[in-house]
Amino acid sequence: MSETIDFDALFQHGRLYSGFDSEDEQTLKAEGGKLLPHLQSVTDQFYAALAHIPDAQPFLEGRLEALKKTHVAWLQTVFSGPYDANFAAHMHKVGEVHVQVKLPVEFMACGMIQISRYLIPVLAQVYAGDSDTLARMMKAINAVTGFCLILMQESYQSSLLAQELEKFMSITGISRALFNNLAAAYKD
Amino acid sequence: MSETIDFDALFQHGRLYSGFDSEDEQTLKAEGGKLLPHLQSVTDQFYAALAHIPDAQPFLEGRLEALKKTHVAWLQTVFSGPYDANFAAHMHKVGEVHVQVKLPVEFMACGMIQISRYLIPVLAQVYAGDSDTLARMMKAINAVTGFCLILMQESYQSSLLAQELEKFMSITGISRALFNNLAAAYKD
Repeated sequence: MSETIDFDALFQHGRLYSGFDSEDEQTLKAEGGKLLPHLQSVTDQFYAALAHIPDAQPFLEGRLEALKKTHVAWLQTVFSGPYDANFAAHMHKVGEVHVQVKLPVEFMACGMIQISRYLIPVLAQVYAGDSDTLARMMKAINAVTGFCLILMQESYQSSLLAQELEKFMSITGISRALFNNLAAAYKD
Repeated sequence: MSETIDFDALFQHGRLYSGFDSEDEQTLKAEGGKLLPHLQSVTDQFYAALAHIPDAQPFLEGRLEALKKTHVAWLQTVFSGPYDANFAAHMHKVGEVHVQVKLPVEFMACGMIQISRYLIPVLAQVYAGDSDTLARMMKAINAVTGFCLILMQESYQSSLLAQELEKFMSITGISRALFNNLAAAYKD
């Protein structure tokens, strides 16, 4: 699927919808390194929160340590950049991987909200007494996590509709060719 | 559609997925009033940001002032509570209204990210020199906006799949009764 996507356009789309701007990029480049030592703890708290959500359990059982390792590595890229078409492609790919394992889409928003939830106390600690940088970092983190959410949900939208169509065709026994012909002849 | 929804269960679902907890509720009850004078300005900046997104224009043209008024009133409920099943029902209804006007789902995440974007400088100003309360309010606002996002997107998911099914049935000429019979006979 990825081959046909214009990731420059997707990067601009993500920036526009999340408001992730040059100021945020510069803030993350300058300050993101200070968060890296805390990403393991944020990840541990993230998976501890998911442990309370029954629908998440089938996706966690027996693979928690591997997931945590991937999650920390992913968070490191979120707070390191560079923020460009490759970054957009990577975040879109993360969405695709979640679609492929059939993780319900609501876990994308859930995940980004929970990550911010556990990052905020870290920021308060790292920037205690420096409200200006604290506020700039909060703005930048809201934007970059929002950017990731927009792109991951984008993967879901295209894939879920394709999956639903596959399901309808299986149920009715209609072939892809017949469906395409009917759709071409159909006036909305 | 709303009549069949268990809003107590939806409230608990929203809390679980967003991490919106009792501490956040208490923080918003105690501090939310301080944000009310700023919600008009946040709303003005929110719609100024949307003005840069081409796909948003058909939903804004000719009704900007009415939308702003509704938006400020809605934000006031978000920061006032009470946070209960009625609150969940209201947020779900807001999602339904957006589905009905066919606003693309990505504007739900876009909207909540942009609201936080413009609230963060307000918080930095209101809580300058009080990093503790600033951090608690940031945590509470991340949670309550996340709660609203989860519930609004929930409206979309159920409605969008229903719309896709309708479209599929229209294109193929298959009736609802026939589709239901085929679906019942189909083994996944």
